[in-house]
Amino acid sequence: MADAFGQMLLDGTGPEIIERDDGFVDAAKIGYFAPIARWPAVERRALRWVRGRVLDAGVGAGRAALELQRRGRSVVAIDVSAGAVEVARGRGVRDVRLLAFEEVDESLGRFDTIVMFGNNFGLFGSPSKARRSLRRLRPLADRIVAGSNDPYTTGDPAHLAYQERNRKRGRMPGQLRLRIRYRDLIGPWFDYLIVSPDEMATIVEGTQWRIRTLLEESGSGYYVAVLE
Amino acid sequence: MADAFGQMLLDGTGPEIIERDDGFVDAAKIGYFAPIARWPAVERRALRWVRGRVLDAGVGAGRAALELQRRGRSVVAIDVSAGAVEVARGRGVRDVRLLAFEEVDESLGRFDTIVMFGNNFGLFGSPSKARRSLRRLRPLADRIVAGSNDPYTTGDPAHLAYQERNRKRGRMPGQLRLRIRYRDLIGPWFDYLIVSPDEMATIVEGTQWRIRTLLEESGSGYYVAVLE
Repeated sequence: MADAFGQMLLDGTGPEIIERDDGFVDAAKIGYFAPIARWPAVERRALRWVRGRVLDAGVGAGRAALELQRRGRSVVAIDVSAGAVEVARGRGVRDVRLLAFEEVDESLGRFDTIVMFGNNFGLFGSPSKARRSLRRLRPLADRIVAGSNDPYTTGDPAHLAYQERNRKRGRMPGQLRLRIRYRDLIGPWFDYLIVSPDEMATIVEGTQWRIRTLLEESGSGYYVAVLE
Repeated sequence: MADAFGQMLLDGTGPEIIERDDGFVDAAKIGYFAPIARWPAVERRALRWVRGRVLDAGVGAGRAALELQRRGRSVVAIDVSAGAVEVARGRGVRDVRLLAFEEVDESLGRFDTIVMFGNNFGLFGSPSKARRSLRRLRPLADRIVAGSNDPYTTGDPAHLAYQERNRKRGRMPGQLRLRIRYRDLIGPWFDYLIVSPDEMATIVEGTQWRIRTLLEESGSGYYVAVLE
């Protein structure tokens, strides 16, 4: 499959065209290069929960990893996109690896914090994969700081119809199946899980993780959860 | 087929997501509502060639029709998109009809000028359809003022590969096959013909039309041809 996402980051322009498996397309200005002043306020606030040795899961163009390095953290960054790895490395992220989130294991060492900014709780993919990953990560990290978007803050009929379609298929309402389109490149389909705080609490139950605190962005469905 | 284009105009936001039949996608800020100050300079210059009773072919959101009405022209506007017709009418275009360009006939009356701004020479679709339409329009209009984009000003490998693919299929290099994607709506595939000035001259040969003048936009491949 083509690395549409990576090529988009290599070119650095965007917009990011995302196609959902019901045919819905969206084109959004890319935030992957945003300096901290243009981050969601809730991610700036979340930085004080990020301590010690850090895993940046889904590094993208490196905005979080670079800021954390600047603050003296030791960061290991991963991404499944070769283009993202190249861009993040080129921008100064010191330790970036081409690795899927599901493949994180003890070979990377222990982490104090796993950071999943930019909605990257989504990388857990599905509730069952999320529970499996959380159990696997339990001995590898003390804390996860992850952003998600409450899927129930939308009133958009197209999104509500998609949530209903998911329910009928036995999927979580916010379990998106997406792919990136960039120019003539079509990326692979992937699952991306967006959940409400309540749904997140249900998912983590029994995994030996719990939600320590929720940081909510006012006027938006975006929030950052601190799991311990 | 869904009126993706029309719904985009009804919502008024964009960006416009265009998919080409080789899978290339592009998302561009929409210019359909642009006031005259933000038109391509060459279209502003072309206004002095637009006289008398005018057919606006492919009215979109009505930017050209509204400006021409303001200048005292009598305008009949057409579009194949019901949403576009609704938007143009709502914005004040007095005579807008849901009609394909190929269906223009003497029932609309005679025109002094047919206006095809915003690259709308493309509505001719293909060289053979263009010649057929030009012959049909000969007794119906004195002048056509049409914008196109020289396909050979690009150095983009993806576009050059598409042009080569077209050549191999016996199509003109700039004969694009496109559809509009908007949210969950997928518009119908349509041919959209972009040609160099030389190619346009070849197409009009033998149709009793000729290129009276070419207005070229500096620093871009966009130009407006005046046919008589």
